[in-house]
Amino acid sequence: MSQLLKLAEKFNCFYLSAQNWKYFIAPALKDECRPFIVEGYQVGLIRSNVVTHLLKYPEVFRVTNDFVELNPAFRDYEERSAKIDDVLRKIKKENVFEVLNGWREECYEVKVEFAGEKVMKMERAATSLFGIKKYGVSINGYVRDPNRGLCIWLQQRSSTKQTWPDKWDNMVSGGFSVGYGIRETAQKEAGEEASVPDSILKNMISAGSVSFFYESSLIGLYANTEFVFDLELPLNFVPINADGEVQKFELLSANECIERIISPEFKITSAPVILDFLIRKGVITPENEPNYLRLIELLHVPLQSFYKRPSSKQNGTCAKIPDYNT
Amino acid sequence: MSQLLKLAEKFNCFYLSAQNWKYFIAPALKDECRPFIVEGYQVGLIRSNVVTHLLKYPEVFRVTNDFVELNPAFRDYEERSAKIDDVLRKIKKENVFEVLNGWREECYEVKVEFAGEKVMKMERAATSLFGIKKYGVSINGYVRDPNRGLCIWLQQRSSTKQTWPDKWDNMVSGGFSVGYGIRETAQKEAGEEASVPDSILKNMISAGSVSFFYESSLIGLYANTEFVFDLELPLNFVPINADGEVQKFELLSANECIERIISPEFKITSAPVILDFLIRKGVITPENEPNYLRLIELLHVPLQSFYKRPSSKQNGTCAKIPDYNT
Repeated sequence: MSQLLKLAEKFNCFYLSAQNWKYFIAPALKDECRPFIVEGYQVGLIRSNVVTHLLKYPEVFRVTNDFVELNPAFRDYEERSAKIDDVLRKIKKENVFEVLNGWREECYEVKVEFAGEKVMKMERAATSLFGIKKYGVSINGYVRDPNRGLCIWLQQRSSTKQTWPDKWDNMVSGGFSVGYGIRETAQKEAGEEASVPDSILKNMISAGSVSFFYESSLIGLYANTEFVFDLELPLNFVPINADGEVQKFELLSANECIERIISPEFKITSAPVILDFLIRKGVITPENEPNYLRLIELLHVPLQSFYKRPSSKQNGTCAKIPDYNT
Repeated sequence: MSQLLKLAEKFNCFYLSAQNWKYFIAPALKDECRPFIVEGYQVGLIRSNVVTHLLKYPEVFRVTNDFVELNPAFRDYEERSAKIDDVLRKIKKENVFEVLNGWREECYEVKVEFAGEKVMKMERAATSLFGIKKYGVSINGYVRDPNRGLCIWLQQRSSTKQTWPDKWDNMVSGGFSVGYGIRETAQKEAGEEASVPDSILKNMISAGSVSFFYESSLIGLYANTEFVFDLELPLNFVPINADGEVQKFELLSANECIERIISPEFKITSAPVILDFLIRKGVITPENEPNYLRLIELLHVPLQSFYKRPSSKQNGTCAKIPDYNT
């Protein structure tokens, strides 16, 4: 197996194990993870070790062998968000989930799908405990150097960042803030992280998306879709950080970039965006990568349908969702 | 739902129905389709109406409720190919499958995966009866017109072509011939179909792949992966057909191209390559396409793992494959 395929299997470690349950050993699923249902829709997936703690709050969560449901009696977005917040602060105090030490007092909007209605908000640090699907934007900043060929700007994250300190990362990436569109978010981050002026940003091209499902003991379940942008930069442009979240930028040749992303110094969840870029730009080809097709498949795992098991709602309670046991 | 998503659901009609079986109603699968096993590996999927005819050849096929297996006693590639050919010619005479009227005396190499060993060959016209996974190459030929912006060359297929006569199609596409690599195949087809000279072909860039699973009553099951190349052409270049398989070329603006691919005049199984191109080039964006993420997902359905259910072989016969019923 090639090193790039190993990497792709690593950032899809959860997807690949989940695929096994679904295709082969479906009944085992409920022992491992249970769908998290809000308003009749699956919005996440919860590991048994987290479920154990939710059992203490039967007024908030209905836990069955097949799923965990947020109490459907909660009236609206505000009430659901407040109840979840209350439980999360109690669990944080028990100090059992390390990921909650990264509590940011910054909420993530939970939706059934990206363009859908928000059903509640949840502290960002807790979303991976519930396997909430995440979205972000990333920019491939590159130059066409007459001597070195295609070169890619990477950043090294600040050592004070709560997640992945000191790791190498894409030139620019970020999550969504309330009120910002997709392209707008990319533009805002490009200004803050790398001081890219508007005159250059107007050349930024929307170039697709990557989706993968990672898991680690530290961060939990990480189902992520990144909207991807390409930005060709002038040869003399040098990114300068403006928000203190970056310690260094470096311009790497395509081959140096491949070395970097397979090294332990690289933030593994940022590798998919760069792999996709190198495939689209003809650096990684079916001729030089024996697992080319499988690699492309693992950059686009079907997360948009992964959680799409709408349940039929009856009398205000969530019916048994279509089913892992049949 | 957007028109582009409708199109993507159309060229994935089989994938989307199969997804339903696997996630929800797995036991129904065996009534609809059965995996086709050769040498212990699934290489295809066979509809019940085809299985009915295979039952007449118990010395060639072992048919169970769960799968159809090519007799594992056949010694090698040659014997397997000869036995299949013999059966197919008999079935052709019965005149029950229209698709066999397109018999070409041209064989397709059946493999477990693209880069894997070939297990047998099969008449091309019959492959969709067995749901054999297909591979091809496609070239997006485009120009950057100073007035019209990004423009794409399309071809209209000859009215004498056995499949999809008169339909509009990508500028260049084709299947694999024995002895040709992936890039070589694209170059050969570009010469034959559009007279692209080597001086221009050297600019052709490998740009990824698309995968989808279509089905129609006419052609049967069509699980296809296309290797995709982009070729920027000089403004004054005009493609000229050299092999009689094209009746016309036309240069369309991006918007005209979108209109064309959603029209019934377009070969539906060629639409994925163009949609992927328009996404990568920033024509279709998350801002102008409400189903952007779902669309990208349906251009990369997981065909490389769809058939990957290796069975454990015992005593030369195929063990029950891991299983749709549990």
